[in-house]
Amino acid sequence: MVCADLQLVEVGPRDGLQNEPLLVPTDIKVAFINRLSATGLRVIEATSFVSSRKVPQLADGAEVLRRIERRSGVRYAVLTPNATGFRAACAAGADEVAVFAAASETFSQRNLNCSIDESFDRFAPVCAAAKDAGVPVRGYVSCVLGCPFEGQVPIAAVTRVARRLAELGCYQISLGDTIGVGTPNRARQLVEAVAVDVPLARLAVHFHDTYGQALANILAMVERGVSVIDTAVGGLGGCPYAPGATGNVASEDVVYMLEGMGINTGVDLERLSEAAWFIGDAVGRPPNSKVSRAMAHCERSK
Amino acid sequence: MVCADLQLVEVGPRDGLQNEPLLVPTDIKVAFINRLSATGLRVIEATSFVSSRKVPQLADGAEVLRRIERRSGVRYAVLTPNATGFRAACAAGADEVAVFAAASETFSQRNLNCSIDESFDRFAPVCAAAKDAGVPVRGYVSCVLGCPFEGQVPIAAVTRVARRLAELGCYQISLGDTIGVGTPNRARQLVEAVAVDVPLARLAVHFHDTYGQALANILAMVERGVSVIDTAVGGLGGCPYAPGATGNVASEDVVYMLEGMGINTGVDLERLSEAAWFIGDAVGRPPNSKVSRAMAHCERSK
Repeated sequence: MVCADLQLVEVGPRDGLQNEPLLVPTDIKVAFINRLSATGLRVIEATSFVSSRKVPQLADGAEVLRRIERRSGVRYAVLTPNATGFRAACAAGADEVAVFAAASETFSQRNLNCSIDESFDRFAPVCAAAKDAGVPVRGYVSCVLGCPFEGQVPIAAVTRVARRLAELGCYQISLGDTIGVGTPNRARQLVEAVAVDVPLARLAVHFHDTYGQALANILAMVERGVSVIDTAVGGLGGCPYAPGATGNVASEDVVYMLEGMGINTGVDLERLSEAAWFIGDAVGRPPNSKVSRAMAHCERSK
Repeated sequence: MVCADLQLVEVGPRDGLQNEPLLVPTDIKVAFINRLSATGLRVIEATSFVSSRKVPQLADGAEVLRRIERRSGVRYAVLTPNATGFRAACAAGADEVAVFAAASETFSQRNLNCSIDESFDRFAPVCAAAKDAGVPVRGYVSCVLGCPFEGQVPIAAVTRVARRLAELGCYQISLGDTIGVGTPNRARQLVEAVAVDVPLARLAVHFHDTYGQALANILAMVERGVSVIDTAVGGLGGCPYAPGATGNVASEDVVYMLEGMGINTGVDLERLSEAAWFIGDAVGRPPNSKVSRAMAHCERSK
């Protein structure tokens, strides 16, 4: 049931930095991604081509993408909400793009400023253009285990959005617990329900750690056969539109667990933790990762 | 496999406060335990009858035990390393006592100042006296998934110590990952091995969250049939003799997960979190619990 190899999708540079109160200089972002590229990670979501008015933190997306050192074997993905974003991402050399839908109507309205149906009207030309260009598209579904505005989100609402993204051509669907309220049984029920329509091998999971549940949920997912996990180094991030949504699950903590379970991630934990401290210095706080903190403590004690 | 009811053993007042750099005033300890008593918890490890030179933080154990308001249905347990401690604990009205062994020789020497064999020479009179007095004895095994001095600890070493504690009359054996290095598969292998000698129903688990793995490990344990979990409100604690061993797993985070899974703990999460903030104020830092922090954030946002 458990896959011997797991793929991590590192979303720190995008989902992490988009929520930082301070703008991180482009040089730092480039150096950060270069460090991540050297850890063994195979997919790095590097930035976003969204409105620079709405997300000024990632306004330098094109420059970041052009300046990073591309390492062979690493895919550099970007978020592209619409056809304009897609064209800019392609011009800057994105290997892969992603569209971002919500399972909750209210969250869609607040986050994307449109209904779920309208959001699909925007995704359709992205997916069509991507198909023409041979660029893989990943689909996100947010609020899969709860919405900051609507509370519980019916599983059927998630399933519907996931299926539509798959039908639109997304090769992988990432199910996001945007506000981190999920617990293992609910997460399992959700994935089992979605897997009826979208094969398990095409699903990824994306947990925020607001209630400290992310790693337990990931364990439940991995044991249920999910083989792609979104993480952010140093537990970076959060969601500007979801009250109380603290960071993503820390990549280091996930790698520590998986490698401890004999599951190969291909990631060098020491380098990963160094990248976490590097970006932690840049944003002015230590990594929100118990593994990175414990490793630093052990280093100091030597 | 999963028990519908789980018992938490709240170790915050003992395993938590014993490691605080500041002495917490007796009044605060009493008020803290009284608050915990009102949460629905059924077992609270209230203090320790150890050398006040070695653990000055708990030198007021007898006074604490005498002054708390005893709630019916709640057992107040204390740690008693030797016969002298046991007599003092009984005089102060402890409902239950505990002895503390290590699975690692070096840790036993550093923490208890004696070999594992010698530690059992001390436990024997405690267990004999407890039997005569009709007081239940709980046995701890520390370093079950790793030792700060020896590194990996063989499963056979843990099994041996657990069996000896059971033979001595301990009604329950708590397996402690003192330095928080364990991951789910190793934890499962360990419990399965120990359960060959000591029935699963008599085992408890005790995880520190140094590497952020505690909740994932607890999920694995609960799904393996373990029905007693040690936790500390606000993630209090650590171990003064284990370098880098940060706090216990936070009771709030465990209750959130279990209740979210439909497993009844009998604990009121809101009151539990209030107790965490109460003691957090006393020790000068917010609870090391994502649930308590997220709940406070939601409260402020209302």
